[in-house]
Amino acid sequence: MRIALAQPNYHVGNFKYNTALTLRAIQDAEKKGAELIVFPELSVCGYPPRDLLFSDVFIRECLRQVEKIAEACRGVAAIVGSPTFNPEQNGKSLRNTAFLLQNGRIQATYHKGLMPTYDVFNEYRYFEPADTFHTIPFKGRRIGLTVCEDIWNLQNQGMYSVNPPDELFRENPDLLINISASPFAWNHGPNRLRVLSENARLYKLPLFNVNLLGGQTDLIFEGGSAVFNPQGKMMDLFPSFEEALRVYDLDEVINGRGKEIPIVPENDGKCRLMMDALVMGVRDYFRKTGLKQVILGLSGGIDSAVSLVVAEKALGKENVWAVLLPGPHSSDHSVDDAVALAENLGVRYDIISINDTVSSLEKSLSPLFKGKEPGVAEENLQARARAVILMGLSNKFGHLLLNTSNKSEAAVGYGTLYGDMCGGLSPLGDVYKTDVYGMAKVINSQQEIIPENTISKPPSAELRPDQKDSDSLPEYDVLDDILCKFLEENMDAASIEESGHDSATVRKVLRLVTGSEHKRRQSPPVLRVTAKCLGAGREMPLEASYEAIINC
Amino acid sequence: MRIALAQPNYHVGNFKYNTALTLRAIQDAEKKGAELIVFPELSVCGYPPRDLLFSDVFIRECLRQVEKIAEACRGVAAIVGSPTFNPEQNGKSLRNTAFLLQNGRIQATYHKGLMPTYDVFNEYRYFEPADTFHTIPFKGRRIGLTVCEDIWNLQNQGMYSVNPPDELFRENPDLLINISASPFAWNHGPNRLRVLSENARLYKLPLFNVNLLGGQTDLIFEGGSAVFNPQGKMMDLFPSFEEALRVYDLDEVINGRGKEIPIVPENDGKCRLMMDALVMGVRDYFRKTGLKQVILGLSGGIDSAVSLVVAEKALGKENVWAVLLPGPHSSDHSVDDAVALAENLGVRYDIISINDTVSSLEKSLSPLFKGKEPGVAEENLQARARAVILMGLSNKFGHLLLNTSNKSEAAVGYGTLYGDMCGGLSPLGDVYKTDVYGMAKVINSQQEIIPENTISKPPSAELRPDQKDSDSLPEYDVLDDILCKFLEENMDAASIEESGHDSATVRKVLRLVTGSEHKRRQSPPVLRVTAKCLGAGREMPLEASYEAIINC
Repeated sequence: MRIALAQPNYHVGNFKYNTALTLRAIQDAEKKGAELIVFPELSVCGYPPRDLLFSDVFIRECLRQVEKIAEACRGVAAIVGSPTFNPEQNGKSLRNTAFLLQNGRIQATYHKGLMPTYDVFNEYRYFEPADTFHTIPFKGRRIGLTVCEDIWNLQNQGMYSVNPPDELFRENPDLLINISASPFAWNHGPNRLRVLSENARLYKLPLFNVNLLGGQTDLIFEGGSAVFNPQGKMMDLFPSFEEALRVYDLDEVINGRGKEIPIVPENDGKCRLMMDALVMGVRDYFRKTGLKQVILGLSGGIDSAVSLVVAEKALGKENVWAVLLPGPHSSDHSVDDAVALAENLGVRYDIISINDTVSSLEKSLSPLFKGKEPGVAEENLQARARAVILMGLSNKFGHLLLNTSNKSEAAVGYGTLYGDMCGGLSPLGDVYKTDVYGMAKVINSQQEIIPENTISKPPSAELRPDQKDSDSLPEYDVLDDILCKFLEENMDAASIEESGHDSATVRKVLRLVTGSEHKRRQSPPVLRVTAKCLGAGREMPLEASYEAIINC
Repeated sequence: MRIALAQPNYHVGNFKYNTALTLRAIQDAEKKGAELIVFPELSVCGYPPRDLLFSDVFIRECLRQVEKIAEACRGVAAIVGSPTFNPEQNGKSLRNTAFLLQNGRIQATYHKGLMPTYDVFNEYRYFEPADTFHTIPFKGRRIGLTVCEDIWNLQNQGMYSVNPPDELFRENPDLLINISASPFAWNHGPNRLRVLSENARLYKLPLFNVNLLGGQTDLIFEGGSAVFNPQGKMMDLFPSFEEALRVYDLDEVINGRGKEIPIVPENDGKCRLMMDALVMGVRDYFRKTGLKQVILGLSGGIDSAVSLVVAEKALGKENVWAVLLPGPHSSDHSVDDAVALAENLGVRYDIISINDTVSSLEKSLSPLFKGKEPGVAEENLQARARAVILMGLSNKFGHLLLNTSNKSEAAVGYGTLYGDMCGGLSPLGDVYKTDVYGMAKVINSQQEIIPENTISKPPSAELRPDQKDSDSLPEYDVLDDILCKFLEENMDAASIEESGHDSATVRKVLRLVTGSEHKRRQSPPVLRVTAKCLGAGREMPLEASYEAIINC
């Protein structure tokens, strides 16, 4: 039996587009002699549809598309995913369903059993979990079909009290198929592949996984679908960040002594992987919202430099507009560095001084500011003057403003709300400052694109004379290690201290993080590339007291 | 047996403060001869703690406080709520627990069985639902203790497959106690009380409910704890929006032929109720974040006028600062109306023209804007110049900027991002324009506080000559009815049309709503006062296609 796997880049709610992609893949698979083609979780509507699921019109449209796709399944059968109405009186009104479409009609259904409801997942908000599980007969074989999370409760060690593959195994399946929508984080891929491998090995069955591809608001899905033999060896791995369709012979996979593909992260692949993910994330956000062009403020610093390169790779140099906005404390080299980068990339740039606007603002405020020392308020005026000018250009010409903040500064609230925190999308908001440097290294690996001076000079917001980030913050390697331990590894203050950090520094950083939740609440969507993003997947109260967790 | 109910205003994570409130109430109850005092859901840490629950330090601190409160329970016993660790290997790592504290120690525990995970609730993110339920013996009686949602699966008609009160009823309880944290919406109170009454009536048992009090970021909890006799008659109802403690004789409630309190919403109480809720919401946000003073832009229009009155009632006139920011298209009467209101309230006001700043911005942009017709970009410059000045004052003097947008304009994206959409908190963001007028009527019911002209003139953003809201939008009574049906009643476009609206208008409004999700993503927290807020409880994808639900 020949099985095709397809990872198209779907668009949530765009039924015409999604179904066209699916039908094209079905045709392609048929041409290639496949008897079955498998698509990812909720393929019909795209993932995650979020509260669109509460619209009955939306669900009915999904079901109409399933019927339409079924009609095209004459020569080849297909497994697609769609939300369905739950006919039971009790429970949530929907199910997360996989359909086997065959001979022009719906042949069988499987309902997802485990509803991930943690981090970025919120599936129990919508879906009733199934409590019975059956294999699906197909051409003399029994398919053990599951949806994403269903295979993650390995050996019942997880956060659920049922284990769908165990239930399916009682019916002696011949192969396992898992359709998934597992969001990208730079270090998540190997976990995902190991869980797949472990399932194949445990049940001694071949396993085919199709994982979703594409950027969807703040979540990035890398694709990277994979095939495992009954010993748990990975026999094939799809590319990440691109559409693909491949066909396999089931018996070859079962008996396959082909070359095993090792499950290891590239040794130095972190920043390159983040780069690729962010480029797809930016490209898809623009494409799916119908936008083409981007504008950003280019300061001569490292964050806006790397943001500009990401934007250029995602959208093409003709669609990128860099604006230099020198102010009273900008250094000459900043303007030079910014110009050099824009010219290296061949993108349009303009220079608009903020000095007059800042002076007008200061003059307007002077009767009320009289007798007060200049401070953060005056610094923020500069950042906000820049934002107003950038948004003016955005509104006039229809370019989306790209935010250029990094995760380290966002985490400690080192940014101006309605100033440099503006923008429609934040590509670096989940990238620590030290990794922004890593990305710059990747960018410059062939030739110097980002000027060396941008990389080597000490980071500064340039909002007052001789300002340096390190005046207010620990050095970035220390800060980033503390942040990663607190945010991603969920370590408490005492444990972070024990790991080798100064107690006062740890408390200071945690107080900055917990004290700036209100700023991040108004941040643009952040493209998620780590295990814990300061956006999707993190829900903190704004008016809580955090003292107990800081002073532990 | 004498039972006390207490609804203190807790502060999430502020253990010292919360435990002091609890201990004081225990003392008070003891003095009043109570044998048992009941506190609301998760009383020990406050509700909702959200992702603070993922901190083990936080949970351990909760448990330490439970022990501390237990030590004080010598004369009187107490029921308190706290998260606890789930000792089972499978399932979520926490439970949502109610404790009976008696004789200086933990006497019994009950774990919540139904985890609301919809709208503003996200409890399955954290808590494993209990699957066994037992009554708790106390002084010769059996208590059927439940936590909030547990009693909402009435007669198994709801979204769960278990019904905890049915399970408890098998053990013949003598009374029912429900501890809850049910968030306010102007029309939710009667639902809540009817469900409580129905449970009492169904099991023929007296029922005591303690509901949480206080504002917590965007959610408002009204209190309104209540007592029902075995016929389901409401025998007492706590005040809304204030702390209280009352003591009841159980036998009197069981036999009670006291005066029944009817469960009916006040006929014309909607806007007064919203007003009271918003005043508590604003007051608590400031108090719990440690802030005292507020600043807002006063335009002479109805939204900022009502916002100012809410702020003044919440924080006192000495803590409120109104700033008038006339621009090139502001009318004289706007300034006059704003001044009159500020003087009526006795709050500080200042007048700062934005004309110079707008001119500077226009001059800076003119080389790039050359040859383009003036439009939305120029209008937004004015709104953003105001925001930068207000934020400058906020940063300099430490006043929190209050957002003054209403729900109608927020819903259709009729507002400037980083302009009038700025602010740390949005008191009117869940109040339709027509209800803002209703609130103005309530405010002026004794004497004219808001100038009549502010109420009677046609709404305008005053960003271009002779601009009126009705140039771009349907009249507000039409708009608000469509919005309410779409957002709160979850009606589809075809049904809204059938209810008596013009088809083109319905589609236009729905397209404006779905096309402005990206703006609202960056809004300040909105105090929730309706069944569906444009903030907490609504999760829409930004880059989805919404055509299918608009064109149905």
